[in-house]
This record gives sequence, structure tokens and C-alpha cells, in this order.
Amino acid sequence: MLDFDSKIEFPNKKNDVFAIGEILVDMISTDYDNNFECDTYQRYFGGSPANIAINVKKLGINSAVSSAVGKDGFGKFLINSLNENEVNTDSVQNVDYATSLVMVTKSKSTPTPIFYREADYHLDYTNGLEETLLDSKFIHFSCWPISKKPARNTIEKVIEVAKKNKILVGFDPNYHPMIWNKGENGIDYVKSIIKRVDIIKPSEDDAERLFGIDTPENQLEKFLQLGAKLVILTLGKNGAIVSNGKDTIRLDTLATDVVDATGAGDAFWSGLYTGLIKGYTIRQSLSLGFGVSAFKLKYTGAVICLPEIEEIKNIYNL
Amino acid sequence: MLDFDSKIEFPNKKNDVFAIGEILVDMISTDYDNNFECDTYQRYFGGSPANIAINVKKLGINSAVSSAVGKDGFGKFLINSLNENEVNTDSVQNVDYATSLVMVTKSKSTPTPIFYREADYHLDYTNGLEETLLDSKFIHFSCWPISKKPARNTIEKVIEVAKKNKILVGFDPNYHPMIWNKGENGIDYVKSIIKRVDIIKPSEDDAERLFGIDTPENQLEKFLQLGAKLVILTLGKNGAIVSNGKDTIRLDTLATDVVDATGAGDAFWSGLYTGLIKGYTIRQSLSLGFGVSAFKLKYTGAVICLPEIEEIKNIYNL
Repeated sequence: MLDFDSKIEFPNKKNDVFAIGEILVDMISTDYDNNFECDTYQRYFGGSPANIAINVKKLGINSAVSSAVGKDGFGKFLINSLNENEVNTDSVQNVDYATSLVMVTKSKSTPTPIFYREADYHLDYTNGLEETLLDSKFIHFSCWPISKKPARNTIEKVIEVAKKNKILVGFDPNYHPMIWNKGENGIDYVKSIIKRVDIIKPSEDDAERLFGIDTPENQLEKFLQLGAKLVILTLGKNGAIVSNGKDTIRLDTLATDVVDATGAGDAFWSGLYTGLIKGYTIRQSLSLGFGVSAFKLKYTGAVICLPEIEEIKNIYNL
Repeated sequence: MLDFDSKIEFPNKKNDVFAIGEILVDMISTDYDNNFECDTYQRYFGGSPANIAINVKKLGINSAVSSAVGKDGFGKFLINSLNENEVNTDSVQNVDYATSLVMVTKSKSTPTPIFYREADYHLDYTNGLEETLLDSKFIHFSCWPISKKPARNTIEKVIEVAKKNKILVGFDPNYHPMIWNKGENGIDYVKSIIKRVDIIKPSEDDAERLFGIDTPENQLEKFLQLGAKLVILTLGKNGAIVSNGKDTIRLDTLATDVVDATGAGDAFWSGLYTGLIKGYTIRQSLSLGFGVSAFKLKYTGAVICLPEIEEIKNIYNL
């Protein structure tokens, strides 16, 4: 039971957060376009777990990333970006596939990304990965690596070893049919993973894709019934409802100024992990998650220059 | 026997040249880069057979393209580009894979492209494709579609039907291990295709990748021994040597001013096809190929604004 007013005790390990899964190049058009006429694109570092690894490092704790990238210029660019941010890249794997890429042509209506998934899902469970895993306090992954084998097998093995070694598991259930293997039922698979993780943070959209439309309270209950231990259901400008299966609390957003919502969910995870690692209670750490998210929302981009968590605490009086 | 001073008689058909294979988005960095720091890329229409289809239309004959593109913005961009150039796109196929993409980061040393091959090789032999094929005088393809199934099966069927219906076959043997299916011997397969085509135009680099280093005369002989009917071995600034198995002739390049070599080979094919369709002899058509290539070399880009073939003939006194 993860009691809201308790702190989590961690053994002495090198990596506070070990993010496993996708590192990607995001190519984003410089202009808005509705008739396929936008010709200029900018290259960005991307991949939600990697963003979290960079964020928590800035907030003041240590992180590591494992992902598969190609033996190409984009793979080198991604690894360089992690190294520049002092993220441990010892278990990043170089594979014989092109570094995965997402093309986004900005649009006044909803932009439809095009996914070029090559290297990212060829992540193997290696001795190097296990070594980093055993020296970590938290692991984190999203739906990307579980959407295709062999990365799915790797995550299953990671969860098994994490459980045995009392390493906590955070899971972002960002299920979307577009990233899933064609012809497979992703929804049932994602549901089967939920009972095996410790912290899950669905958005309302994630919940709707998994369960259909329902009230936030009912959606929260569905996650709990699938075996989730701590469920944080985020509700955009309405904050979040959070339950540990015994108590349910409501939290307000701290955001006043929303410039760009990209990466706000990752910022929340980053504040939460940093709070828990730094010895704050679960309730305080959830607030720190909202603090980091509110700070990020004031700036454009998925990864911004974050201050240390103590400054976030001061800014938002947490 | 394709005698150099004879003309080829064609039946009355709608499409003069039917290019089958890859249409691609080329993303090319705006700056030169040697340390993975180039962040801005420009989107271009790409794919050698599609470039030839556009070129020959500008030179004054009709063309069609068959290729598989994704149901995405890039697929629409490519089809729009062909339609704007009045190329017949009736047998372009929309498939459930992302439109294929090539990323090129320009470099002072040799740039290494990253290939994202998704839609292009999912080209099926359909009734629509056969309908266009039977109404064509020439078909043209490169090593891309034969490098992976199911497109390879489609090309094999296309060749079979072309032979039965006396449709001439042009093949660009631009073999490169990077586009080939991992673990397969592409060289032997390309060699097995050569006897089944009518016109083949290897560069010295193509010949070297297939046969190893040798003199141009010996390389030419190797293509003939594999069953090629008309071999045009291009030698860069040294022109070409051409053989029909009986006579071998040397041709000089007409280029004086080389600004950008991209697409020069496709320009050659385009002049050759247009010459043959317009009733010039094979020898004259080869010269027209060099004329179009020389014209293209004066400008930057794979596809430039070409004049009608008669103007090329006048400019270069052919």
C-alpha cells in the first residue's frame, strides 16, 4: 500500500530513474500546413522516457536510459544529447536498423504524425541492461516498447527482474493504435501489464482509448480493478484524481500560463520521481509533479531548462 | 538486335514510359554538417523512376508511375507532385505503411543517407497496374523494387507480362547493399535480372559493386555475357561506351558546366526514352540522352525545368 503521507525508502543505488524504451528523432515542420506544402522541418531530440531522464537530471537526481538506436548520424545525435545532459547511456544499444523517427507536419487541425519505427523496438535484454537495471531505484516505460517484439519481451523480463529486486515500476499507458503492431489487440495487452506496475499515470484520453468514454471516477476504478497500485488520472486544466486503492484524493493543477502543452505529462512524472527519490511523501511528490508541469507549460518545447526541484518547491509554495 | 542506326517501331499505346518502383520523400539538410549538428531539413520529391516520368513529360512524351505510398501527408504530397507534372498516377497504390523516406545530412565527406523504407516495397501486382502496363511502350525500374518482396514479385510478373506483350524493358542496375534486404545476396539476384531486360545503363560504380574493379571494356562484356541486349556503361566525364552485343561505340559527354550531378543519370534515361519514342535512331537517342544530361548538369536539383527534346537537339546541335 502506497500511503499518501508516507515516504518511500530506497536502497543505495546509482541510478534514481532508469527510463527504458524509445529515443527518437522528432522532425517537426517549421510552418503550419493544411495542403502538404510545408517543406522545411526541424530536427529535435524526442522520446518520452528520454525526456524524463533529462528532466530529472536537471531537477537534481540521477538517471539512465536504455534504448536501441541505429548506427547512423541520428543515433549519434541522440546519444550526444543524452550525454550532454549527463544521463547515463551505458546501456543504449546500437543496432542494424535506422534510428526511429517521427515526422510531424504542424496543422491548424490535429496534426497526424508519421511514424518510422526501425531501431527503437529492436531493444534486447542484455547483460549491460540488467546491470543498469539492478543499480536503479525506479524504472519507467511507456507503451512504445511493449507495442512490438523484441522490445516487448525485453520489458517483460525487465518487469520480472524489477519485481524480484524490489525496484519500483512506473508505466505511462499512452496506448495508441497507430504505434501498435498491425493486427494485434493492444488494448488487452496494455490491460494485462497494469497489474504488474507500481505507478500508472493515464490521461483522460489514454483512459478513453483503453476503456471507452466514462466519468473520471469510473475510469480510475477500472485501473484499480486491473491491479494498479497508485493511479494518477490527469484531467488537464482540472488537475488530477489519484488513488492508492484505499484513499482517493483530488489535486488541482498549478498552471496559470499555458504556452505549450508538449511534454507536460513527462514534466509531471519528472517532478513526482524527483520528489519521491528526495524523500518527500507521496502527497508532496504529486504536488511537485504539478509544480514541474506548471513550470514547463510556460515555455515552448518538450524539454526545457528546468531548475532544481527545491526551486520549483519555492516558486509554487509546495 | 538493337542496331544503332535503326529506329524502334512502337504500337499505338497511351503511356510512352511506365516507371515502376519507388517514389520517396528526400529530406536533405540545408547545411553541411560533420558533427550531427545540422537541425534543418528540406523536403523534396524523390525516387529515380518518378524523376524520369516527370522529365520525359517535360521533354514531350507521356508517362505513368506505379508505386506504393502511405495514406499520409507525404503520400499525398508525392501524388500531387506527379499530378502537377501531368504524369499518369492511376496505378499508384495507397498502402497501410508510412511513405518511404530518405534522410540525407549533407557532409563535406561522403554523406551517408538513412533509409526509412516502409510503403515503397509493398507494391502489389494489381489489375490496375496490369492495365497501365499493357497500355505502355516502355517500362522502367531500378534496383529498389527488386530489393524486397512483395515488390520483387511484382516486378518479376511485370517483366513476364512485358515480354509476352513486346513491351520494352529498361533497367537501372543501381545495386547497393544498403537498400537490399539484410542477409540476402543482392548481387546474384541483380545478375539474374539482366538477361530479362532490353536496355541497361550501369555507371562504373554500379559495375564495380556487381563485378569488382575492372576496365570499362571488360565490365561491358560481363553485362553482355549475362544476356543484356543494349548496355550503356556511363563513365562520368569520359562519356560512355555502348554495346548491342555486335557493335561497340564510344560517346562523349556534352557537359561543359557541371553545377550539380544529382539526377544526371535519370536525365540521360529521359533523353534516351524520349528520342526512341519520337522516332530517332538508337544512336541519335543516345546523343539526346547526353544532351538532356548536359542540360541538367547546369542546374541544381534532381528534377529541373527541362525544355522539349527538340530544343535540346538544337542547343547541342544533335
